[in-house]
Amino acid sequence: MKCISILGSTGSIGTQTLDVVRQYGDIRVTALAVRSNIELLYKQITEFSPKVVCVYDENKAAELSKRLKDEGIKCDVLSGMDGLIACACEEEAVITVTAFVGMIGIRPTIEAIKKGKDIALANKETLVTAGHIIMPLAAKMNVKILPVDSEHSAIFQCLQGAQGNKIEKILLTASGGPFRGKKREELKNIRPEDALKHPNWSMGRKITIDSSTMVNKGLEVMEAKWLFDVEPDDIEVVIQPQSIIHSMIEFTDGAVIAQLGVPDMKLPIQYALYYPERRLKTAKRLDFKTITSIITDAPDNENFPALPLAYEAIRTGGSMPTVYNAVNEIAVDKFLNGAIGYLDISDLIASEMAKHKTIPDPSLDDVTGLEKELKQALSGYRTR
Amino acid sequence: MKCISILGSTGSIGTQTLDVVRQYGDIRVTALAVRSNIELLYKQITEFSPKVVCVYDENKAAELSKRLKDEGIKCDVLSGMDGLIACACEEEAVITVTAFVGMIGIRPTIEAIKKGKDIALANKETLVTAGHIIMPLAAKMNVKILPVDSEHSAIFQCLQGAQGNKIEKILLTASGGPFRGKKREELKNIRPEDALKHPNWSMGRKITIDSSTMVNKGLEVMEAKWLFDVEPDDIEVVIQPQSIIHSMIEFTDGAVIAQLGVPDMKLPIQYALYYPERRLKTAKRLDFKTITSIITDAPDNENFPALPLAYEAIRTGGSMPTVYNAVNEIAVDKFLNGAIGYLDISDLIASEMAKHKTIPDPSLDDVTGLEKELKQALSGYRTR
Repeated sequence: MKCISILGSTGSIGTQTLDVVRQYGDIRVTALAVRSNIELLYKQITEFSPKVVCVYDENKAAELSKRLKDEGIKCDVLSGMDGLIACACEEEAVITVTAFVGMIGIRPTIEAIKKGKDIALANKETLVTAGHIIMPLAAKMNVKILPVDSEHSAIFQCLQGAQGNKIEKILLTASGGPFRGKKREELKNIRPEDALKHPNWSMGRKITIDSSTMVNKGLEVMEAKWLFDVEPDDIEVVIQPQSIIHSMIEFTDGAVIAQLGVPDMKLPIQYALYYPERRLKTAKRLDFKTITSIITDAPDNENFPALPLAYEAIRTGGSMPTVYNAVNEIAVDKFLNGAIGYLDISDLIASEMAKHKTIPDPSLDDVTGLEKELKQALSGYRTR
Repeated sequence: MKCISILGSTGSIGTQTLDVVRQYGDIRVTALAVRSNIELLYKQITEFSPKVVCVYDENKAAELSKRLKDEGIKCDVLSGMDGLIACACEEEAVITVTAFVGMIGIRPTIEAIKKGKDIALANKETLVTAGHIIMPLAAKMNVKILPVDSEHSAIFQCLQGAQGNKIEKILLTASGGPFRGKKREELKNIRPEDALKHPNWSMGRKITIDSSTMVNKGLEVMEAKWLFDVEPDDIEVVIQPQSIIHSMIEFTDGAVIAQLGVPDMKLPIQYALYYPERRLKTAKRLDFKTITSIITDAPDNENFPALPLAYEAIRTGGSMPTVYNAVNEIAVDKFLNGAIGYLDISDLIASEMAKHKTIPDPSLDDVTGLEKELKQALSGYRTR
């Protein structure tokens, strides 16, 4: 039986990964790791019987450990970064699913690669901030980086038929989010509850906001650069509001290969878990008897400046993508807490990028240090 | 240098194949064959210096032979079916491009397969009438059947990434032709010159008419069945009037892989000639900055009955597809000559299919004999 480890098992991707495991019944989950949601983790333990779990929060870990002991449930409970790494590297696992949101996912991913685990990658920060470390390491260890997000999985699927032909261009699709078509003036008073409604995808809170600001697409451009070894200028974002086309690649002869489907994260998850095998999925399918048109559009870079800022960050390289990502993480948090307005998110990214003196080829300590620095520097920042 | 033979070198696909050869300059054409157009063949001989040519029409062959001799140009000139077969099997050729329109292309194709040549297939009749003979023979001889038409090439391209996963469904796209949206009543008085205008593709006369009646798509459904080993009911025709999506395949997990591009036959031609390599093509590309939507629709089987008739023919199998194809060939000819009306094309197919007593597993003689029989039986048929 194929064994896997899931980091971030109580989040959106984590729970859907477990749905896939539950459906097919031929994968064993040997490790689960979460930040703090021990109520859901407890249920997952009783259902999937992992050998080891980690709760990043120490107190919560102790609480869970006690509960399991009281009930006579055998399962090691670890905590902190060492615990995450131990889960990521669980001996029997052949795939480590990295579904944490935030920089917390990077170190465990690196250690898992060092142990030869294939990575089902759902953590954006890993490649955005440390792509220059991860990709050469993965190549050296001969491990697969299996993208678990709709767009990169689509590109990865399209690439399966490349037969050695180089990609000329990636056409990365974006829904454009719930505010597509709105002008800056109209975006000014967007409230968190408005931004948390995504038209097509059911996702976590942060990624939903990122999707509305186009930061999510900016991060995906950076990831695509690393995953598929293309120049940023060979990645074109195409707005496809219905999320029918999940992304495309173009070859030198002008042929474009696209992956289409209904918006459902379970497809990229199961493709990553069973790659290269495709499993029967009984869920809703695209129905061309009812689709009358597939809308496409160019991105609106004037009113959604986060996308061009991402191109700027990845062209600059070094530590600049870390600034883009970390400042966004901080800003989204402040926006959700009412400390700053909606437009302040991209404004803050822009102003911090302008201030930053790029570190070329940053180490992992550099990028995590930089994140901490920015968090401290911006801790008191608010505009309202 | 890779050597190829081209059957039907003066037609639409033939001349575009020579355009590709001319552009890259690293393929040698060792044999050319035509029905009767010796003026253009003469020019092709002086430019490409084939070792042998065939003019199916004996008198024209003699005329060309004399001219070449008079001018001191060394090139064997053959004629008739034996000549076509000799060209198809030219010793040095590794690929035989079969671009004749009509049943004339079948025997040379079979002989080329027997000699181990890969087939760049542009002749529809080959698989429609003799798929049950061709495909097992190709498998036995381990030769590739490389589809040279936009839709099947698209499916073939999408299939390159299948990695052993079976296709669940083929989504075969169709422009719908120039009369899409019209009702039977409005189609009654269509004249040949109206039907010869295709909105997207520049093609030969017969295929342009076939495209307007949906017979072309019907024949493609039959071809797809043989090329990709799928049941007719797993082939769904999707109307895509702009010809941006060239076809799609769907896997068991619901993932749809599509090939898109500008309408340009040179792409499938060069993909077949250089397969699996893709060559730089500098022509116009899809530009998602200008595309605002990709329109799709379901086929209108009520007003364009030729498509459901094709499904009926391929489900029945045996000699029925030959009846469909041969009667259509006869009917289009009559329509172009003013002997029958536009709607009579599909009406004649329907009535002849209703009359036909199916021969199961017909031999090559059966299908060619059947074609001759139908030609004789319908020779005097006219409705106007």
